[in-house]
Amino acid sequence: MNTEPQAIAEACAEVLWSHDRASKKLGISVENIAPGYAELSMTVADDMVNGHSICHGGFMFTLADSTFAFACNTYNQNCVAQHCTISYLAPAFKGDRLLATATEVSRHGRNGIYDISIVKQDNKKIVEFRGFSRTIAGTLLPDANPTMSTDSHN
Amino acid sequence: MNTEPQAIAEACAEVLWSHDRASKKLGISVENIAPGYAELSMTVADDMVNGHSICHGGFMFTLADSTFAFACNTYNQNCVAQHCTISYLAPAFKGDRLLATATEVSRHGRNGIYDISIVKQDNKKIVEFRGFSRTIAGTLLPDANPTMSTDSHN
Amino acid sequence: MNTEPQAIAEACAEVLWSHDRASKKLGISVENIAPGYAELSMTVADDMVNGHSICHGGFMFTLADSTFAFACNTYNQNCVAQHCTISYLAPAFKGDRLLATATEVSRHGRNGIYDISIVKQDNKKIVEFRGFSRTIAGTLLPDANPTMSTDSHN
Amino acid sequence: MNTEPQAIAEACAEVLWSHDRASKKLGISVENIAPGYAELSMTVADDMVNGHSICHGGFMFTLADSTFAFACNTYNQNCVAQHCTISYLAPAFKGDRLLATATEVSRHGRNGIYDISIVKQDNKKIVEFRGFSRTIAGTLLPDANPTMSTDSHN
Repeated sequence: MNTEPQAIAEACAEVLWSHDRASKKLGISVENIAPGYAELSMTVADDMVNGHSICHGGFMFTLADSTFAFACNTYNQNCVAQHCTISYLAPAFKGDRLLATATEVSRHGRNGIYDISIVKQDNKKIVEFRGFSRTIAGTLLPDANPTMSTDSHN
Repeated sequence: MNTEPQAIAEACAEVLWSHDRASKKLGISVENIAPGYAELSMTVADDMVNGHSICHGGFMFTLADSTFAFACNTYNQNCVAQHCTISYLAPAFKGDRLLATATEVSRHGRNGIYDISIVKQDNKKIVEFRGFSRTIAGTLLPDANPTMSTDSHN
Repeated sequence: MNTEPQAIAEACAEVLWSHDRASKKLGISVENIAPGYAELSMTVADDMVNGHSICHGGFMFTLADSTFAFACNTYNQNCVAQHCTISYLAPAFKGDRLLATATEVSRHGRNGIYDISIVKQDNKKIVEFRGFSRTIAGTLLPDANPTMSTDSHN
Repeated sequence: MNTEPQAIAEACAEVLWSHDRASKKLGISVENIAPGYAELSMTVADDMVNGHSICHGGFMFTLADSTFAFACNTYNQNCVAQHCTISYLAPAFKGDRLLATATEVSRHGRNGIYDISIVKQDNKKIVEFRGFSRTIAGTLLPDANPTMSTDSHN
């Protein structure tokens, strides 16, 4: 197994993606991955909008939340969302292409904080999201050394 | 027009529902509506889960967010989400029936705070959500007296 | 040791209070304690206000935060704040008597959620606060049975 | 009146400081000001700690909140906190020198989002705070042209 951080981050994203039916259902794409970092994109589809063609907040949340999950799971240590906050700055409309970028604010013990911004195709920011993560037992990648416990970081 | 608060709340919910393709797409049902109050339900479908049959947080958020929208729009005054926080207490799995209940914590000026809890069929609480709303211009129902401005509460 | 929950809650509050120089410095009083519940009061002093006699948000936060700490530490298990949110609904002025009430929303594993409201003497709500706690090793009360580990809930 | 943005920001900070008895009471100093930016420092005093010499969260919140207020009030338009979130990453102890830095994440309409980090003298981050502001009527500086209304941005 390539143990270089960038290679681990990309391998983790592949595992995460292979299980993520929800993100696929919404047409989400993974654009970029690095340790503690992720970029995902989504186009606002017909059935994501209300009668005024405004995207439902739940789909913008889901894009941000998936981006958060990809960013916090780049260290080959299972990591889950505990708590998230989302602020809506401006609406998105049918056909808008949304790009979500997750950056790492802090990792302290088993806790992490990640900020996710969503911008539209014209680079206007429409969502600011902050996610609080916590590592749990287990790794994403098959263990190179199967005699090691995967619970040691609990 | 019946101007009794309960009748207004129910009429507003009908208008909101008629536009809400996103909630329909997810199989959400409106169970109960009252002024400042809403109950919506959703069953976790096959395509809402990851490889471990755990429901993606985005769908639980969307259920909570829709319940929030129905509760804060019961006064015939257009009201939008500004900011939301969600805390995940326990996972939901494929086939779980989720019931979300929104109660009003505060209305002050144009701002509102609503708490939304999601419980599973066994009454176990899995999500605690707090939504911050703001009224905007316009009403949901056609004006009974068309000479009145709909912008007076701006 | 009286192991009745109300007696434990009151004994924990006494221990917490004996260490809490900050709350004393601000003239905070403990009004009521029960398992998962606390009421604390504070009067807005001259040096808590700005030039317009409006109380600085930091002092309202401190009152809410102390009330949160008293409520989440009523089970004789050390418990700390991880994350808090505060919303300001209306201002407080010099001389206002503030009453903060903490109620328990959820306890799940080592995590807890508590809601704290602050009202003024006229019962008007001015602050809505939500606190997220986490238990840590150790108890507040001296162990009745010194052979038991205090670390078992880690 | 010097209408250069940096000069306006500094003049606003002087007005804010002249009214801020609470920050002075806690020994807070203003270190740097720029448009949408502020740095404030505070040393953890004897009466800010509990029996274990750990700084009460309320004082760290107050430092962050004051830094937020100085940053969002650099445009000569009165601006107030609506909602804040604080996450505690690590404790501070008696004698620690804390430096809080506020940066602007977004301004959209009358709303703003600011992130405030607090680090200790060894540059270790101990607090991550996010503040949501809203502009209100009035300016901080005396109007150069007194015939203009100060309510025009409501």
